[in-house]
Amino acid sequence: MKHMPGRHFLQIPGPTNTPLPILAAIAKPTIDHRGPEFGELGLDVLKRIRGVFKTKGPVIIYPCSGTGAWEAALVNTLSAGDHVLMYETGWFSTLWSKMTLALGLKPEFIKGDWRSGVDAKALESALLADTAHKFKAVAVVHNETSTGAVSNIAAVRRAIDNAKHPALLLVDTISSLGSIDFRHDEWGVDVTVGGSQKGLMLPPGIAFNAISNKALEASKQAKLPRSFLGWNEMLAANATGYFPYTPSTNLLQGLKVALDLIEEEGLDEVFARHDRAASATRRAVEHWGFEIQCRNPAEYSSSLTAVRLPEGHSADRLRKEILERTNTSLGNGLGILADRVFRIGHLGDFNAASVLGTLAAVEVGLKATGIPYRSGGLDAAIETLNGNLPPSNKMGEAAE
Amino acid sequence: MKHMPGRHFLQIPGPTNTPLPILAAIAKPTIDHRGPEFGELGLDVLKRIRGVFKTKGPVIIYPCSGTGAWEAALVNTLSAGDHVLMYETGWFSTLWSKMTLALGLKPEFIKGDWRSGVDAKALESALLADTAHKFKAVAVVHNETSTGAVSNIAAVRRAIDNAKHPALLLVDTISSLGSIDFRHDEWGVDVTVGGSQKGLMLPPGIAFNAISNKALEASKQAKLPRSFLGWNEMLAANATGYFPYTPSTNLLQGLKVALDLIEEEGLDEVFARHDRAASATRRAVEHWGFEIQCRNPAEYSSSLTAVRLPEGHSADRLRKEILERTNTSLGNGLGILADRVFRIGHLGDFNAASVLGTLAAVEVGLKATGIPYRSGGLDAAIETLNGNLPPSNKMGEAAE
Amino acid sequence: MKHMPGRHFLQIPGPTNTPLPILAAIAKPTIDHRGPEFGELGLDVLKRIRGVFKTKGPVIIYPCSGTGAWEAALVNTLSAGDHVLMYETGWFSTLWSKMTLALGLKPEFIKGDWRSGVDAKALESALLADTAHKFKAVAVVHNETSTGAVSNIAAVRRAIDNAKHPALLLVDTISSLGSIDFRHDEWGVDVTVGGSQKGLMLPPGIAFNAISNKALEASKQAKLPRSFLGWNEMLAANATGYFPYTPSTNLLQGLKVALDLIEEEGLDEVFARHDRAASATRRAVEHWGFEIQCRNPAEYSSSLTAVRLPEGHSADRLRKEILERTNTSLGNGLGILADRVFRIGHLGDFNAASVLGTLAAVEVGLKATGIPYRSGGLDAAIETLNGNLPPSNKMGEAAE
Amino acid sequence: MKHMPGRHFLQIPGPTNTPLPILAAIAKPTIDHRGPEFGELGLDVLKRIRGVFKTKGPVIIYPCSGTGAWEAALVNTLSAGDHVLMYETGWFSTLWSKMTLALGLKPEFIKGDWRSGVDAKALESALLADTAHKFKAVAVVHNETSTGAVSNIAAVRRAIDNAKHPALLLVDTISSLGSIDFRHDEWGVDVTVGGSQKGLMLPPGIAFNAISNKALEASKQAKLPRSFLGWNEMLAANATGYFPYTPSTNLLQGLKVALDLIEEEGLDEVFARHDRAASATRRAVEHWGFEIQCRNPAEYSSSLTAVRLPEGHSADRLRKEILERTNTSLGNGLGILADRVFRIGHLGDFNAASVLGTLAAVEVGLKATGIPYRSGGLDAAIETLNGNLPPSNKMGEAAE
Repeated sequence: MKHMPGRHFLQIPGPTNTPLPILAAIAKPTIDHRGPEFGELGLDVLKRIRGVFKTKGPVIIYPCSGTGAWEAALVNTLSAGDHVLMYETGWFSTLWSKMTLALGLKPEFIKGDWRSGVDAKALESALLADTAHKFKAVAVVHNETSTGAVSNIAAVRRAIDNAKHPALLLVDTISSLGSIDFRHDEWGVDVTVGGSQKGLMLPPGIAFNAISNKALEASKQAKLPRSFLGWNEMLAANATGYFPYTPSTNLLQGLKVALDLIEEEGLDEVFARHDRAASATRRAVEHWGFEIQCRNPAEYSSSLTAVRLPEGHSADRLRKEILERTNTSLGNGLGILADRVFRIGHLGDFNAASVLGTLAAVEVGLKATGIPYRSGGLDAAIETLNGNLPPSNKMGEAAE
Repeated sequence: MKHMPGRHFLQIPGPTNTPLPILAAIAKPTIDHRGPEFGELGLDVLKRIRGVFKTKGPVIIYPCSGTGAWEAALVNTLSAGDHVLMYETGWFSTLWSKMTLALGLKPEFIKGDWRSGVDAKALESALLADTAHKFKAVAVVHNETSTGAVSNIAAVRRAIDNAKHPALLLVDTISSLGSIDFRHDEWGVDVTVGGSQKGLMLPPGIAFNAISNKALEASKQAKLPRSFLGWNEMLAANATGYFPYTPSTNLLQGLKVALDLIEEEGLDEVFARHDRAASATRRAVEHWGFEIQCRNPAEYSSSLTAVRLPEGHSADRLRKEILERTNTSLGNGLGILADRVFRIGHLGDFNAASVLGTLAAVEVGLKATGIPYRSGGLDAAIETLNGNLPPSNKMGEAAE
Repeated sequence: MKHMPGRHFLQIPGPTNTPLPILAAIAKPTIDHRGPEFGELGLDVLKRIRGVFKTKGPVIIYPCSGTGAWEAALVNTLSAGDHVLMYETGWFSTLWSKMTLALGLKPEFIKGDWRSGVDAKALESALLADTAHKFKAVAVVHNETSTGAVSNIAAVRRAIDNAKHPALLLVDTISSLGSIDFRHDEWGVDVTVGGSQKGLMLPPGIAFNAISNKALEASKQAKLPRSFLGWNEMLAANATGYFPYTPSTNLLQGLKVALDLIEEEGLDEVFARHDRAASATRRAVEHWGFEIQCRNPAEYSSSLTAVRLPEGHSADRLRKEILERTNTSLGNGLGILADRVFRIGHLGDFNAASVLGTLAAVEVGLKATGIPYRSGGLDAAIETLNGNLPPSNKMGEAAE
Repeated sequence: MKHMPGRHFLQIPGPTNTPLPILAAIAKPTIDHRGPEFGELGLDVLKRIRGVFKTKGPVIIYPCSGTGAWEAALVNTLSAGDHVLMYETGWFSTLWSKMTLALGLKPEFIKGDWRSGVDAKALESALLADTAHKFKAVAVVHNETSTGAVSNIAAVRRAIDNAKHPALLLVDTISSLGSIDFRHDEWGVDVTVGGSQKGLMLPPGIAFNAISNKALEASKQAKLPRSFLGWNEMLAANATGYFPYTPSTNLLQGLKVALDLIEEEGLDEVFARHDRAASATRRAVEHWGFEIQCRNPAEYSSSLTAVRLPEGHSADRLRKEILERTNTSLGNGLGILADRVFRIGHLGDFNAASVLGTLAAVEVGLKATGIPYRSGGLDAAIETLNGNLPPSNKMGEAAE
């Protein structure tokens, strides 16, 4: 592959740009995963990662990608034939429902329009109707990476509570963790699934399960076969900072630095920075005259914006031009949105200059492909970035 | 953790020392796993990794550690209740048999003494006795990392053939791949399990399944639930160099360089270099007056040497002294060998100076702990290293 | 220093952003500067660096910064009391003239306005008047980094030739080498001074003297004391790829990769890329309504643009706001331009996205400081970048 | 150059192995040398480097290699025709005396035998005889890198004092700084010359002048032409952490980490570690039956050992075999010692395992080349390393 001058702008909605201090930590020599230095590292990251999930309970760190952590959430808590209530927010919720099926579970997948978050009322109705409590779990995606719509997890919690339903609540936060406020404990989530390669700014390769007591109890009864992803041996070994099998040592060295950076900036400011970038991006998109894939402003994602092109224009051709002309990667449309939308990632490690450079790159592509747009989007974005935005929108707290 | 001067000698039997060009490749910025640059990378490593397994068939690269690839070999080929014939070579074969149990399989675990490789005759007897063909698979470890004993996989193949038994042959090569000759196709292995952090010289985090046609056929009937580890979607996506979910991008960037290094040196020379280091290490150990854990010289491992200390001496105390005095990590005894043996890793990226430095570090520790030994081990090792050793011992080819 | 999120935009007119492959090469372990690996490296870079200077003659690589190479050009060719004809293009030509004075030479410094390049006619007049040939050298700056004005070196050559004057021609190309076309041989330059940290994309630390035969001859008579910077021992040792004293080994490892990148892109395309960025930047600046420090469009620099702010506005306050709000560094005004201008570097390793991100960062700062400007500069820049610009303006070839 | 497996053992007497945290710091992106982050860095390293020289006065950090700092010590303090008293300890003192000559100074070079340090009595005699005070400076090498002999600088100081001579004392500590105790203030040194690439564990590229008040005063009268190396502008700019011209930014980033590592270990322990390695090396050499180039045990260097081979054996052939067989670089014999000695570097970043690995590599080479030696040198070295050596020999304090 020919070297392209200048730094690559990796502005897909994850994996995200890894800050150089994290890359340097990952490139440190591998250490003995049974030695004293590793034990210190393990205890440190296992403890501090809890803060990112806002939980006091255990967080398991798997040496695998997010898809493995999806599976872990299911196989540790459920048994063959269990029913799972899910909601179609887009491509990733669809994939997760297919996984439940593949594992021998029975998903009930409430149809959605790929332009909004979870309809908590619809979940509540389904749960109220389920007097036999056949649903053992409700499994939803917090931030649907394919559409840029955030679901209100506090509302989902209330839906379950209102229905007095005992189902576990499983939430995928792969593209929201460390980018958009999420509260494992406060929102009563039983298993939160996270990954390394988005808000945590690491390369892909480690993934997480944050676990409630209720989930731990459920795991004792759960019958799905599991070994690699089993919680028990992990929790036992983690007590002293070690792992039951070889962990992803070097990514854990990187995780330590990622946590340093997040703590230094402060989670609230991290969220606010994402909010500002998202607002500025939407202002530019709206100014250009394009539609945002997420229909409901209350559900706009702060980690990515999916942009709909006018009929007859190819989003993939646009992305190709942008890549070749500006060395900037944007996300493609997935599933039914293929070639219809492109996705601008504004999550992880970025600043005003990189966000604006990305938006400028989009304009370069629009001009090059002849897609009609109204110029001035950059100015609109700059205006937004400079303004004093309100603190991060905390969806869980908002009145409904 | 206080910085210790000088480079750490990571001489455990894996993870191994990662060469700096590989660390640099891993520290390159993450790239878009759906972009053209990744497609090129994917096709390249998926093709070239086959050479290391000596197979013309597909090799799956999982974004997980070796334990996940163990599980993948089982869940893709077997169904609940299937019997698996295994052989107790040591700690890792024991763990693998426990995994089969956890997944709902029925291991028959032939007892071994942790001082030798698989007894192919014993396997043959068991298979001959199994006229009902209840065994769906034979699962053995090529190089038992806990003891330093190599099993003759060609002999295992012959045992199955002699018994005219249809069982699949599953082999763990985690600590032999890229260090000790292994021939997936020639030896008729159905699933070979490999990892990144030993002979491939990468940090832990990716793992492999090399798959025979027979295994692929079996996977169509296999009923164990699987999704993350499923072969089908992987193989489909891999055809164009991509993955069905986010791969460990940065480790794949490193894998490309690892394959470059291995190809530049040549697999045969890589094996010969391991043989020389192993011979030199054994010469030193024998000179010191210690017993080698592996009893059978024909089964000596070229990737590690497990050394038995005289009764009454603590291997862990020795390792601790060595670490503190020389910044050198050695492997601990596992399971029943805890504190009884220590393991010297001589695999992956090393040279004469690092092997000899490691042996000298052991002497420093022996002297410091007062464990009686005969001095001059280093000279013996140097003699061996300097001699013209025969080319790598190719166990599969040896007459029995 | 607190970590600022996102990558720093180092958009000063040098040092420039070092591409990661170069940083990785610099971070490789130091090698024995008297060993065979170094000899290969030395021969390679000593040969290939000539291409960047467009010379067939020797190029000396000093383990020092550009200021040392300025001094080397003088002390190797001149003797105490020698007269040197110089031209005031800005801060750096002024510094160089002060250096000649400090070294016991006698500079005649033709006054300039810091808004244009060298006036070749003025040089010619001075040389014609110098019938006694007291001027032993003409020393000028190719690209004046403090103002963004390029001097026509071919015209300077002609001025000397027209005057039939024997003076040596010394040229500083520190901020043009590898960014703006320069032709050591064709333009009859006797000593060209270059540095690593601009168009060559390396960190600061090595610097160059490209030397003509005439300069070599002159060095035999030159009496200024010199040792560290002496050419003779360097040239002797360089013949086999080595150096008379310890060279900057790691920067030479980086230089090898820098040359790879430049050769892969092609010098002409490198220049054209700089031209495009410079054009786009000037379009934005003009659209905003600001004056460009360089008055003469034929002398616009392709490696930086110095922008004059309206009276009463502080360029330093603007730069401070930009740094804090966007993590983007711009160059300050130097000498009489302090606080009056800011300088946008567009040299070395950059692409459309980083240039546009930089310009957007300037707009963020303008808005934040309340400096009046006309919005839409980004759109103007994008228009320019997308157009098919003519190939790099080759000043030396242009008809006068 | 073909990749050689395993880490290179760079055991020349400098440049030394750079610890990975320092390499990582050097590979951080270049920062604006006029921005606030740099100012902090500059103040920090300019202050802390004083501790390594044991001075309360200023230390200048040049963006050049040690040879430049040699020249700086001379040109800032002396005038054309000044006499300088020097002592021939070996190759480097000879080079320095040649430099004084090249710069128009008049060295009086007391003949030595290349097997011992400076004879302070001889200096004293010369100074006593110099009643006219023609010697403006005494210039000696603290640790002669070509022979491994350390000179007693406190004794040199006393010699000057005894002679009541006003000459400045200039000392080269390039291969002792940070490895062998040195006390700029206590020993009344006027200019100490240091480099980055030995005890400071950095790659080559920056070099130092520590300056006494007397030297500063002398610089006001000194007439040798100087600009790049002039102290005045450096000291003025350094007051706020900046430099008068572009510094070696990335090496300064590395220097910060180097100082962290040295301070964490503690200078006294750093010296003791060097002493232990030196003792162990000498024990091995003596056991093998070879002569050490330095004749006087009180002058043995703790940073390198030069080993004399028996007549008729080529040190260069030995080094070549060692390099090819063990990937270990040793230092060659310089000047009259070419091919007669080889030099083992034990300075900078090393530990027991790397020292012993180096000694083992020497044995590999001895055996391969057939040079007769007595085996068992490694055991002798191990014995020494394990013993409780007395604290670092502090030559300056020793009774004479």
